[in-house]
Amino acid sequence: MATETNPIRFGIIGCADIARKVSRAIALAPNAVLVAVGSRSLDKAQRFIAANGLDASVVRAVGSYEEVLEDPGIDAVYVPLPTSLHVRWAVAVAERGKHLLLEKPTAVCAAELDIILEACRSRGVQFMDCTMWMHNPRTTKMRELLSDSARFGQIQTVHSHFSFAGNPDFLQNDIRVKPDLDALGALGDVGWYCIRSILWAFDYELPKKAIALPGTVRNDSGIILSCGSSLLWEDGKVATFHCDFLTHLTMDLSVVGTNGSLRLDDFVIPFEEDKAQFSFGSALSFNDLVTGWHTLPSKHIVVTSLPQEALMVQEFSRLAGSIRASVSKPDDKWPTITRKTQVVLDAVKASIDQGCTPVDIVG
Amino acid sequence: MATETNPIRFGIIGCADIARKVSRAIALAPNAVLVAVGSRSLDKAQRFIAANGLDASVVRAVGSYEEVLEDPGIDAVYVPLPTSLHVRWAVAVAERGKHLLLEKPTAVCAAELDIILEACRSRGVQFMDCTMWMHNPRTTKMRELLSDSARFGQIQTVHSHFSFAGNPDFLQNDIRVKPDLDALGALGDVGWYCIRSILWAFDYELPKKAIALPGTVRNDSGIILSCGSSLLWEDGKVATFHCDFLTHLTMDLSVVGTNGSLRLDDFVIPFEEDKAQFSFGSALSFNDLVTGWHTLPSKHIVVTSLPQEALMVQEFSRLAGSIRASVSKPDDKWPTITRKTQVVLDAVKASIDQGCTPVDIVG
Repeated sequence: MATETNPIRFGIIGCADIARKVSRAIALAPNAVLVAVGSRSLDKAQRFIAANGLDASVVRAVGSYEEVLEDPGIDAVYVPLPTSLHVRWAVAVAERGKHLLLEKPTAVCAAELDIILEACRSRGVQFMDCTMWMHNPRTTKMRELLSDSARFGQIQTVHSHFSFAGNPDFLQNDIRVKPDLDALGALGDVGWYCIRSILWAFDYELPKKAIALPGTVRNDSGIILSCGSSLLWEDGKVATFHCDFLTHLTMDLSVVGTNGSLRLDDFVIPFEEDKAQFSFGSALSFNDLVTGWHTLPSKHIVVTSLPQEALMVQEFSRLAGSIRASVSKPDDKWPTITRKTQVVLDAVKASIDQGCTPVDIVG
Repeated sequence: MATETNPIRFGIIGCADIARKVSRAIALAPNAVLVAVGSRSLDKAQRFIAANGLDASVVRAVGSYEEVLEDPGIDAVYVPLPTSLHVRWAVAVAERGKHLLLEKPTAVCAAELDIILEACRSRGVQFMDCTMWMHNPRTTKMRELLSDSARFGQIQTVHSHFSFAGNPDFLQNDIRVKPDLDALGALGDVGWYCIRSILWAFDYELPKKAIALPGTVRNDSGIILSCGSSLLWEDGKVATFHCDFLTHLTMDLSVVGTNGSLRLDDFVIPFEEDKAQFSFGSALSFNDLVTGWHTLPSKHIVVTSLPQEALMVQEFSRLAGSIRASVSKPDDKWPTITRKTQVVLDAVKASIDQGCTPVDIVG
């Protein structure tokens, strides 16, 4: 098992910006330790270790990705490389028998993701994507309320919005606007979270159809900078989302059921690290003259002992440790959720590419 | 002018539930007075007056709508009749030279609304629809922020949602689910507010296209119980809304610009009558490690001296009084806004009826 004295030993391949946050998360997780940072350049790996205050006597700088994967002292690898490189390196991680913590979007399409997942399956390693908010205790608390058929009723509509205003340098140079690196653009980067939040709210029931919203904005290379979609289930259950790199930082999620509604405006990254809030209303109604509300939504605050990304690393390490100790097999929950997210993402992309026509979603 | 000693004298035709709220609003507005309640049944009018604590020595019960319209002691008429009756009675009000305060949805289609507006124009009477939240000082404060090109930037996306769960009696018997009375169903009743809020946010710039969202739910008579739409402007500016009679009471409005965002969850009827809140964020950003937000949205509370519906009556009476005193002509702002709302509503309805195909919006 992964414990403080016998932690899961992590390697990172690629010194992306997001790796700063995840290396801190590995340090914070009680059952994980970072032992190697690999980059195509040894110098870059060394600089990453120094810049992030990592202990160079524990964390080794490595001048290649391969070398990290070959290291028998490494149990798990975190892969924050550009999306187009995922299939190559994620498969390589799995083939070396190492557990895989993979940044999102996990692949450029579900077909490539399937290659990754099959590699993990056949080698018996744990797969998990880096959708950090899933691991916040707020998410657990919200799930509890959404599952309460008396207080929430049955889910009917969801709206999710994640946008941020990329500065001119971002819009020109970031890997997320480059067709050869992150071909999914805003849909893959921020839309991923919207799709995941909708699937989460619907308890992972796949929608039947995706119909993109009009108004997609692309850059000169054809990369999506702004888009949205509706998703349709049976009986008029419907969700919409919007994502972009062009507008003010916004992270709204609103879930409405027959008898309750839940809403938060920081669903991906909570305003504050140590506590997170949301509002929930149940059986709200107007006063008799309809001049005000009888009862108001209540505000919930959920405290967390560790940042959500550290809880993610902790959960991943718990699963990996249990496999390492031959106590259990990989938990299929995480790859299943990832795959559904990617399948919906593919359908939205297809609908956008086909001029907002309906696209069937087949799991 | 309309003053406390020389107020605008109101008649009401139809004892709808909403007339209870508006009769109180007329009583609260300092420049208005209710003098007659007309119903097809004298008894019903008398009961309405008694049940709502109105002073029977001031408010006359009248056994027909016509008689109210013929009364030379009445300056203005509030019409809360079922939508299908609007064109007949609203035109009759205008033709008697009386100012018209008309419930929403104002007509079953823009063509019928145009007949009403033309009658008002040709007789020189003031027209206003009963979209009460427009008159809340919160709305003025929010407008101020949305117009701030530094703090908010340029508007890019809006999402609006108004739903409530009609009980079995409502879904069976309410006029809003009857094809001969309120043929627009949820789209006309609650969707009206969503469309208005979107137009308001876009400072009444008409969208180019409406494309209904999938998942429309209708009752056995074909009346819409749940629907939604996307609306498209140029340059990827887009709005979505959802409205229904089937889910938990929800009134969300979220407006996102290039540098700011505004959000509230009681946009139609504020939680409390005497004060209303919203949240506004400007230039929000993550902290360096993207583990939290640098700054948070701020909460604004706007106090109001009168309920929003009384402010509506007061503004309507101010305009009517000024016309009565031959000081000014009818203010074209209100019919213009109404017409835009109805035009967008028509386009959404057409898109729904045509299977969610895009419908051009022509002012």
